[in-house]
Amino acid sequence: MTYCLAMSLDQGLVFASDSRTNAGVDHVSTFRKMRVWEKPGDRVLVMLSAGNLAVTQFVSTLLDQGTKSDDPKKNILLAETMFDAARVVGSYVREVHGHDAKHLKEHGADFALSLIFGGQIKGEAPRLFMIYAAGNFIECGEDSPFIQIGETKYGKPILDRVVTRKLDLMPATKCALLSLNSTVRSNLTVGLPIDLLVYHKDEFKVGLHHTIGEDDPYFQKLGQMWGEGLRNLFQVLPDPPWGGEV
Amino acid sequence: MTYCLAMSLDQGLVFASDSRTNAGVDHVSTFRKMRVWEKPGDRVLVMLSAGNLAVTQFVSTLLDQGTKSDDPKKNILLAETMFDAARVVGSYVREVHGHDAKHLKEHGADFALSLIFGGQIKGEAPRLFMIYAAGNFIECGEDSPFIQIGETKYGKPILDRVVTRKLDLMPATKCALLSLNSTVRSNLTVGLPIDLLVYHKDEFKVGLHHTIGEDDPYFQKLGQMWGEGLRNLFQVLPDPPWGGEV
Repeated sequence: MTYCLAMSLDQGLVFASDSRTNAGVDHVSTFRKMRVWEKPGDRVLVMLSAGNLAVTQFVSTLLDQGTKSDDPKKNILLAETMFDAARVVGSYVREVHGHDAKHLKEHGADFALSLIFGGQIKGEAPRLFMIYAAGNFIECGEDSPFIQIGETKYGKPILDRVVTRKLDLMPATKCALLSLNSTVRSNLTVGLPIDLLVYHKDEFKVGLHHTIGEDDPYFQKLGQMWGEGLRNLFQVLPDPPWGGEV
Repeated sequence: MTYCLAMSLDQGLVFASDSRTNAGVDHVSTFRKMRVWEKPGDRVLVMLSAGNLAVTQFVSTLLDQGTKSDDPKKNILLAETMFDAARVVGSYVREVHGHDAKHLKEHGADFALSLIFGGQIKGEAPRLFMIYAAGNFIECGEDSPFIQIGETKYGKPILDRVVTRKLDLMPATKCALLSLNSTVRSNLTVGLPIDLLVYHKDEFKVGLHHTIGEDDPYFQKLGQMWGEGLRNLFQVLPDPPWGGEV
């Protein structure tokens, strides 16, 4: 399983992904689910992927190979807008579907894929998309400051409570890590290391790009303080008043 | 959708269920998912249900009708142990499967059902089971103090952090309500009122049985204090130290 999330905020974009891949309990591996394409001064593009690993790797390899093409319909580094770049990604998703879906079906496997694709291209604001297995996509709107893919539910309550477009990038990054912390705790198939990328609006270069392993002191401390804080908060909340009826 | 949970603790049992039933966005209704059978001084049996409403109502109606039978294999009020009672429930699940599953399939619908079944029968300790659509079941063991069915994920992190067998019944009830609060907030298809039942070990009668509606002052205050407490806790946690690298 996988858990990836991205936030679209007034100050920029935050991306975070786990790196646990599993195919049955005896086959749990670590694969990166974040890909970054950067052309300093012009664009930063980030893709997070969930689903069948063979499928998502195929798509990202086609995207990499496409960066050598002169055709803006094949090369995300030449696309004029984020919308056009998302269309390039969607077209590669369809190419892989045409190549693999029938064969996967013969083996009882789904063509499972979902992507978060975001970044900024000079001339427009940062934008964030969710791309589906059908190659179509939606854009993150004003009212939906975050997108999640994969094992999304455990880590959603904290996002629902805290994330608005006005949240600064570092608190937003903290919130993304807490969302991952809750997911990792509740689902063994989501695991460290976590890839983290922060993009500051209008900088057209990768801001923070950090990999968080098991021994990362900040992530450890954050998880510990959050857990203790939750238990303390739980304890100070009043017990139900109906006990007397028993 | 549905969210039900139950806890098996040193002091007794806690059951909680939402009551939102939906079949498409324009058809959202309220149906109770908690059924209680009580024979004061002898036994208390509680069932929480998730899945296809026609299926789960069929099972509970058969259970009700069965209480008029002299056969302990058909009557949960005559079953000698909770295990035997769970077998009675499982046998009715199979009866409904035989009656409905083929017809549901013809209409593209699954035979969807999962049940939490727990209580105490004189002569043994309180016990808690999860019963599957196949009519088989598992018992909640020493290491797993709670069982959830339905839309389980949003409300699991708080349970993972707080619930142990040693937790007292009123704090456990508070925790169950927080778990429901998180689920209701994150998923519109889980909704109030909440049915709540607390059973004190060896009392052989229903303890607290309470229905919590939208205007319940304790539930409102609990949700509000929890939300504020989480946001405050979030704010006092340190921001990531890597900001300087940007």
